[in-house]
Amino acid sequence: MPRRRHWGWGFEGEPVGEGAAELAAHLGFGSAELEQPAPLRVDPDRALHAHGASYLDVVRALRGDFPHLPDVVVRPDDEPGVLAALERADAENLTVTPYGGGTSVVGGVDPVSRHDGAMSLDLGRLDRVLEVDPVSRAARIQAGATGPRIEAQLAEHGMTLRFYPQSFERSTLGGWIATRAAGHFATGPTHIDDLVESVRAVTPRGEVWESRRLPASGAGPSPDRLLLGSEGTLAVITEAWVRVRPREVPRWSARVELDELSAGLELVREIVQSGMRPSNCRLVEAREAQLTLSADRTTLHLGFEGSSEPVEQARALCARYGDVLEGAGGAWRDAFLRAPYLRDTLVSMGVLTETFETAATWDRLPGLIEAVQAAVGWVGMVYCRITHAYPDGAAPYFTVVAPARRGDEEAQWAEIKRLASEAVLAGGGTITHHHAVGRDHRRWYDLQRPAPFAAALRAAKAAVDPDGRLNPGVLLD
Amino acid sequence: MPRRRHWGWGFEGEPVGEGAAELAAHLGFGSAELEQPAPLRVDPDRALHAHGASYLDVVRALRGDFPHLPDVVVRPDDEPGVLAALERADAENLTVTPYGGGTSVVGGVDPVSRHDGAMSLDLGRLDRVLEVDPVSRAARIQAGATGPRIEAQLAEHGMTLRFYPQSFERSTLGGWIATRAAGHFATGPTHIDDLVESVRAVTPRGEVWESRRLPASGAGPSPDRLLLGSEGTLAVITEAWVRVRPREVPRWSARVELDELSAGLELVREIVQSGMRPSNCRLVEAREAQLTLSADRTTLHLGFEGSSEPVEQARALCARYGDVLEGAGGAWRDAFLRAPYLRDTLVSMGVLTETFETAATWDRLPGLIEAVQAAVGWVGMVYCRITHAYPDGAAPYFTVVAPARRGDEEAQWAEIKRLASEAVLAGGGTITHHHAVGRDHRRWYDLQRPAPFAAALRAAKAAVDPDGRLNPGVLLD
Repeated sequence: MPRRRHWGWGFEGEPVGEGAAELAAHLGFGSAELEQPAPLRVDPDRALHAHGASYLDVVRALRGDFPHLPDVVVRPDDEPGVLAALERADAENLTVTPYGGGTSVVGGVDPVSRHDGAMSLDLGRLDRVLEVDPVSRAARIQAGATGPRIEAQLAEHGMTLRFYPQSFERSTLGGWIATRAAGHFATGPTHIDDLVESVRAVTPRGEVWESRRLPASGAGPSPDRLLLGSEGTLAVITEAWVRVRPREVPRWSARVELDELSAGLELVREIVQSGMRPSNCRLVEAREAQLTLSADRTTLHLGFEGSSEPVEQARALCARYGDVLEGAGGAWRDAFLRAPYLRDTLVSMGVLTETFETAATWDRLPGLIEAVQAAVGWVGMVYCRITHAYPDGAAPYFTVVAPARRGDEEAQWAEIKRLASEAVLAGGGTITHHHAVGRDHRRWYDLQRPAPFAAALRAAKAAVDPDGRLNPGVLLD
Repeated sequence: MPRRRHWGWGFEGEPVGEGAAELAAHLGFGSAELEQPAPLRVDPDRALHAHGASYLDVVRALRGDFPHLPDVVVRPDDEPGVLAALERADAENLTVTPYGGGTSVVGGVDPVSRHDGAMSLDLGRLDRVLEVDPVSRAARIQAGATGPRIEAQLAEHGMTLRFYPQSFERSTLGGWIATRAAGHFATGPTHIDDLVESVRAVTPRGEVWESRRLPASGAGPSPDRLLLGSEGTLAVITEAWVRVRPREVPRWSARVELDELSAGLELVREIVQSGMRPSNCRLVEAREAQLTLSADRTTLHLGFEGSSEPVEQARALCARYGDVLEGAGGAWRDAFLRAPYLRDTLVSMGVLTETFETAATWDRLPGLIEAVQAAVGWVGMVYCRITHAYPDGAAPYFTVVAPARRGDEEAQWAEIKRLASEAVLAGGGTITHHHAVGRDHRRWYDLQRPAPFAAALRAAKAAVDPDGRLNPGVLLD
């Protein structure tokens, strides 16, 4: 099995830096002379578990800087192994950070110690599909299974989970649930929340938190919804029943080219408010399309799956807004999955590249996008795309690309993060639609969260994790 | 304004007992000589707030028996009034039971006192639509607004919430949120959970619990989802932003007649698993259809709204299973809304009539239905219908009709409830899909709920309601 690189995305031996000269020319900044990774002076496995996959994580790891090296990395084989690890943490008084694919972009998996040491609890060996129910279309899957592992095993049953976050190659089911991840389905069940039938987790006290498999329920507040988004602070998720579906062939896809982002926003709103539920409905601003897709104009990537979607109606609607080029489905997806690799090149070139995302109701969305671009536009380029659309609003996703202040990246990044987050909250957005809170978003999450809910959540954590062993500083102190 | 009757459903002056002779003949039990309500010896308003609308509530109120008369009924005009009521409860050391339409069928609004007295906090005067956002299709509505009040006010904006629980005429938005109510939409957003954009509530300490208006978010566990289903135990809901839609004309409806319930289950499963989302998809067993719909066979009521639904495909699919009679949409709805009135007649006739409901995955559903009917079938007739369908399962709804043991109804009901609930849990169901937990389902809810979640919920309640003032005994002690 190939070994993951201790910095950035991907595996040892995969190339970094392809196209650097062209990128530098296109951007007008960044050096084609790539910064080389510092020699690794610590245990590679501990280095790998010292951080997630944010821009700063990549910069720091490239330089051999690991502020939160775990004292121990534990890789249980199964749930009893997880319980044993938690017992060990109790016996040795260790902080425990659950670790899935290590793809957090918000400082969610740094093994920060608040005890006598830090344990990174890597769930990667819990990677099996344990059971498939073809009648109800559901599967019981272990928390540490990555996207490719899940799909390969479900394919043997003719099924698919059909959940593709950008981190698909490395991130895990447990991580998706813990962070309320969103996949590339643009409408309908966008978040993993809607695909979860039941969750099984274990608390630091060794208690099992397992809900019933149910298609729906009205029995009290949902126990699953308290674990969804808990970011490893309440319990360690070990497995879940999730809703799967037969593998479907894409039915229709098109690229719609538009003159203005605002026209695209109107088109997307009309699509979802008319009751259509395209599987893909991704609106990419002209400047980002130029960078990643070799397209010139603002582009809506639209795709339908299944046999019951109103393709004719969609085609006619799109034609009222722009030029419809049918059957151009794959390009955006390639660019989407290539982005984390591209970032390693950009970082090596001395380019700051940061993404952040939110969601807001339609009435506030144009103003929010404008305000965010104004707040951080001065540092470099700020691209916007719409990744998910709902009848009452949508999720804009921003990419900042700027010349890095080498050696001072941390302060530069913090300034951008602050300005962007303030603009997002002031504009009526959420601090995150699917990147989670972690440590990087805490300040604004605390402002966004209703105070009595914060008190309730703190109390809930104290009840199940009285020693505050699980992922301290994330969501709560 | 007409005054509500202190027992049963409906208003003073509305007839009770129509068709009693025919019902008795059809059932083979029950008397056409109606039991007359006992003279009311307590304050009518306190009597009205002493109970909900369960079978036992109707029986007891008919006999003038009010085990939980509130000491005081408070009707605030607005949120400051709610806060003042909570302050008064604190000053006078009163237990507080939030009261919406008083339609709980699970003992959820009985003002049980655990302090020096009991306050019923009636939100009925908070009944306005405060704001409509036509761009995002959302509306801010006060918690005490009933179904008809909401629809009348939204109609002025050409909008509808389109949420029709059976209690529609009397139940309120706040009650729906507190109990995770389900409307008559059979697929898609069945529960109010999915229509809620944000919730505003106040705690006994006077703190405001308000989430942001968001189409979706991934920022920590959802604060709304902790209030959804909290049944008045955490905070008093005062208003919410909910997703509305333009008023749509039903597009196609049909009645499909089938020979067997099992064929109907297969048909419903195929419909939802194929991606269709009919607005109505209600499967009624032959014996219930005979009682309420004057139909002879097992009947699926199917309806589509909006312009993007695959009617042709649905028609062809249904024809493979049974006889399709198009355009027969209204009958089931009339029977549905008439049922609470019918129950008053049945109770007066000395007929026990109880309903309970659950949800289970498709693989377990036929076995669960069979087990429930076997467990309680000996007491009388047990009808089953399917009210809500999901890709991974469905919600069966049972109606028990039996000769009441007059004077001993409580014990008889408790026995039926116990047998049914045990069968539901053993069969893999939830103790409730949309009737809530209240006090009647507590025993089985406690068995169903994951133990660490129960601990977390208890702690959360203690944090926001340290004196245990809100609705004690419901969900938690």
